[in-house]
Amino acid sequence: MTLRCLFPILDWAPGYTRAALGADLVAAVIVTIMLIPQSHAYAMLAGLPPHVGLYASMLPLIAYAVFGSSRTLAVGPVAVVSLMTAAAVGDVAAQGTAGYMTAAITLAALSGLVLLAMAALRLGFLANALSHPVISGFISASGLLIAAGQLKHLLGVTAEGDTLVRLAIGLWYGLPATNPWTLAIGAAATTFLFWTRSRLKPLLMRLGLRARAADVVTRAAPVFAVVASTLAVVGLDLGAKGVKIVGAVPAGLPDLVLPSFDPDLAVRLFPAAVLIALVGFVESVSVAQTLAAKLRQRIVPDQELVGLGMANVASAVSGGYPVTGGFARSVVNFDAGAETPLAGAFTAIGIAVATVAFTPLFFHLPQATLAATIVVAVLSLVDLKALARTWRYSRTDFLAMATTIAGVLLAGVEAGIVAGVALSLLQVLWRASRPHVAIVGQVPGTGHFRNVLRHDVIQSPRVLSVRVDESLWFANARWLEDLILDLVAARPEAEHVVLMCPAVNAIDASALESLETIAGRLRGAGIGFHLSEVKGPVMDRLERSDFFESRFQGQVFLSHLDAMWTLDPETFPPPAGRADPLRRVGDTGRP
Amino acid sequence: MTLRCLFPILDWAPGYTRAALGADLVAAVIVTIMLIPQSHAYAMLAGLPPHVGLYASMLPLIAYAVFGSSRTLAVGPVAVVSLMTAAAVGDVAAQGTAGYMTAAITLAALSGLVLLAMAALRLGFLANALSHPVISGFISASGLLIAAGQLKHLLGVTAEGDTLVRLAIGLWYGLPATNPWTLAIGAAATTFLFWTRSRLKPLLMRLGLRARAADVVTRAAPVFAVVASTLAVVGLDLGAKGVKIVGAVPAGLPDLVLPSFDPDLAVRLFPAAVLIALVGFVESVSVAQTLAAKLRQRIVPDQELVGLGMANVASAVSGGYPVTGGFARSVVNFDAGAETPLAGAFTAIGIAVATVAFTPLFFHLPQATLAATIVVAVLSLVDLKALARTWRYSRTDFLAMATTIAGVLLAGVEAGIVAGVALSLLQVLWRASRPHVAIVGQVPGTGHFRNVLRHDVIQSPRVLSVRVDESLWFANARWLEDLILDLVAARPEAEHVVLMCPAVNAIDASALESLETIAGRLRGAGIGFHLSEVKGPVMDRLERSDFFESRFQGQVFLSHLDAMWTLDPETFPPPAGRADPLRRVGDTGRP
Repeated sequence: MTLRCLFPILDWAPGYTRAALGADLVAAVIVTIMLIPQSHAYAMLAGLPPHVGLYASMLPLIAYAVFGSSRTLAVGPVAVVSLMTAAAVGDVAAQGTAGYMTAAITLAALSGLVLLAMAALRLGFLANALSHPVISGFISASGLLIAAGQLKHLLGVTAEGDTLVRLAIGLWYGLPATNPWTLAIGAAATTFLFWTRSRLKPLLMRLGLRARAADVVTRAAPVFAVVASTLAVVGLDLGAKGVKIVGAVPAGLPDLVLPSFDPDLAVRLFPAAVLIALVGFVESVSVAQTLAAKLRQRIVPDQELVGLGMANVASAVSGGYPVTGGFARSVVNFDAGAETPLAGAFTAIGIAVATVAFTPLFFHLPQATLAATIVVAVLSLVDLKALARTWRYSRTDFLAMATTIAGVLLAGVEAGIVAGVALSLLQVLWRASRPHVAIVGQVPGTGHFRNVLRHDVIQSPRVLSVRVDESLWFANARWLEDLILDLVAARPEAEHVVLMCPAVNAIDASALESLETIAGRLRGAGIGFHLSEVKGPVMDRLERSDFFESRFQGQVFLSHLDAMWTLDPETFPPPAGRADPLRRVGDTGRP
Repeated sequence: MTLRCLFPILDWAPGYTRAALGADLVAAVIVTIMLIPQSHAYAMLAGLPPHVGLYASMLPLIAYAVFGSSRTLAVGPVAVVSLMTAAAVGDVAAQGTAGYMTAAITLAALSGLVLLAMAALRLGFLANALSHPVISGFISASGLLIAAGQLKHLLGVTAEGDTLVRLAIGLWYGLPATNPWTLAIGAAATTFLFWTRSRLKPLLMRLGLRARAADVVTRAAPVFAVVASTLAVVGLDLGAKGVKIVGAVPAGLPDLVLPSFDPDLAVRLFPAAVLIALVGFVESVSVAQTLAAKLRQRIVPDQELVGLGMANVASAVSGGYPVTGGFARSVVNFDAGAETPLAGAFTAIGIAVATVAFTPLFFHLPQATLAATIVVAVLSLVDLKALARTWRYSRTDFLAMATTIAGVLLAGVEAGIVAGVALSLLQVLWRASRPHVAIVGQVPGTGHFRNVLRHDVIQSPRVLSVRVDESLWFANARWLEDLILDLVAARPEAEHVVLMCPAVNAIDASALESLETIAGRLRGAGIGFHLSEVKGPVMDRLERSDFFESRFQGQVFLSHLDAMWTLDPETFPPPAGRADPLRRVGDTGRP
């Protein structure tokens, strides 16, 4: 049982069938074909040589197959994390230096360790810390920013920048130096890829291909673009005409080494590693849960932390950079029929074969083609209609989404996600610090007490009945103090305050102090302070503390009606046969 | 009204009396006497020349008097913020350089702007974001760390370090170089100050002084220590014998200048400025609320943000460094009878007079005396017994407190507060992501439905009744999905699920999606999904969305008993005269 928890592979490996093997192999072939140009492209996006993208697409997939809880998630280099890697590593080293590579590897190791630490602390629930509008805004804006950043490769100009404004300025000044051959390849590749996305499959099917075959051909479209543009470069000798090409890619598998550990570098990269771990985890879990729901499978967030953590550590020891579960690739894997994580392992083998045998073929591949691959992939993530939908439903959610988008586009991807996380946390804190409360009165003829603002109810002139609808703890303790004292100040004729606690599930040390403070101050003003409908576990805990011996000297009533019968029998005459007018839940016989 | 909100001075200034003037003047004299050595000492703690401490004790006090909402808070340099300033500024400039001073001023300006921005965004509720155990642990550990950091001044050795371990190593190697004269002054001053704290006042009263006079003399004890040790240095020519003295302090008032703004510096100091603003605000509000409660006054957190923000901006334009409301000084101010913030303004005038006239007197003041002042002041903040108290009440709270203490002592003051904030936020998120839920049944013979685990209740075999006790929103939406599906899987005979929502105060966009997902999946399994006891505002919002038209196809019942009567009339036979068996709150007549 425990072993199964740690190694989800034990869940499916014993019952692995020949049919599953076939399905996994087909999926692996399709994903491999898609992944070769993609891993080149994302490595370029991260400012790294193309073979690093291939390295990050081997061992991490095998690690995830062993430790991950999703059957169909495809792990590897992804666009957003590549962009975040470029931002973080660019802060500590210049692109193209050995230091840049070391920093990228360190970042992968750190992200992996952060994820594993989160797993050890059972922090999988942090996947819920980002609201949907923030995630959606972040993904869309990152897609736009990434696409804008690729324009320079499509034009063959130099333009640096990590925000939309700087990119636009860079492009503006670079525009006159546009290389016509690069532009031609870039425009052709982009148009071709967009066209295949929407039109190729229906066309092939009309030509008589079966759906499955049409699908495989469509998925392989980037490979056609790669082959065609490479042939164009070779045939027209475009390398000599200023078209930037991939160049020499080291052949062979990566060496397995323990990444060198430089404490200073680790400290500087640590905040970025935390962000990458968080963003990667949230992106990955969202994808995995969406796919798992379709197959009625379950994702265990704490186990996903282990799987992604091990994948990043594997990336670090094999010379890669941070990886996570990618949206597009996972959907392809799922659509292609992958049944187990073995599909991922087979993909890794496919990439390994390509790395050993095919790297010389990439020498003349123009960077513009890779840029086109990226642009087409990321623009499919952009969903600006969500802005309008969110605006209609909730202004708060819209604000969070718009701020995240503006942050990413105008201040960079890290600033954007920090703003989004901060907004989500503020929302959580804000809600936590303002519990819903209501002054309640009796629904005539019933034992129900409801909000006086929404129901036609009977109120006592002498007893103030307040219902608080959240647990009492440090986040709202002070606020409750203020509230009760304000309410009493506004109703000078009140002789008792009864706090109705049907939704109070816990009272922590800070809140206990606040309740004592409230009781003490009300007693100073000659007002009684009581509780009603306190839940069992809360009552147990109060009994264990010295709450009833100390400053709280009121009563605790089983039902709020009991409280009213006792404290205001004029307005709420108790029934004749009422047995125990002063019943106190958990009364232990103390005076 | 609005003006009054912005300028709390308008609350009390119009009714200012001669009696209040007398009280404020007395309090100002006492606080001034206390503040002169303290501001020297804290400036030293921040790594700044002593006159900077005086500068930070003038204009900020006047700004707070105009904009602050507490009547008795004494603003100025404080120990913890001074230590944080040293840590932050030490990262960007070497102590003693002009850059160090510039960075300290920039930090004050940034903290001020952060506080004002928080005020504009009404983020005063963030004062509740730190749990009491975290605050208490942070203050205690900072006190210990500060005291340990002063040992080098008491011994006259050199030892740098921002953690307990580094300080201990530094002291160990520095110990042989101890200056005997410095040690003598340091030990004498420390002993004297500790003695006066506990023993002087009772002694003076036994000698016949009135309580008030004894009090003033006791408060002035640091001044005696300053005078005596200065005389000793002059008389014995200890400066020549290696005793470090304050040296030349520029006389005269600070120039008012707009601090120069260096964007790079601002970016590097920004995270520290946010931490200082948060810690200063929490410390200050805690003190202000404690004192205000004694006088039945109110503190407005959002207004405190304005007061402290303006105080920091005032500090920056007058050559000071970050300030906040200090605990010890505010208590002295309060005990001395200050009635309005004018006492603070008078204190500022007292400090100004001292700055203009008395600075030459500080030339021979030994630094060991200042260190003794700091040690005695901060050790009174250390409350390690709280660890034991917290352990007994709650292991979670204890863990938060112990982690914060360990963080401050072993990794420095910034790491400590970051750890404390992170732990508090985790606690908030954890609670938010796990709402309390209960399977409920009918308390026999009543309309009450209670937790089946705690009450002897009647359950339906066909209807699963689940009560959820928090609002439904992004933090717990996914969790709710998992929960309901798990519950249904565990009870295959269930035909309906009714979600009882008496404590659900809101349903956000993410949660709405989750409810639709749940309804869709249950329908797929042939199970009905209904709601009961939905609150008015929540119902209004659901009606505005397309929830009822889309995937949710269940009913909404006014009371849970209604639901049981309708869905399982065998177990819960409805009464004969029941009018509307299928009542749906807010039914708009749609089919």
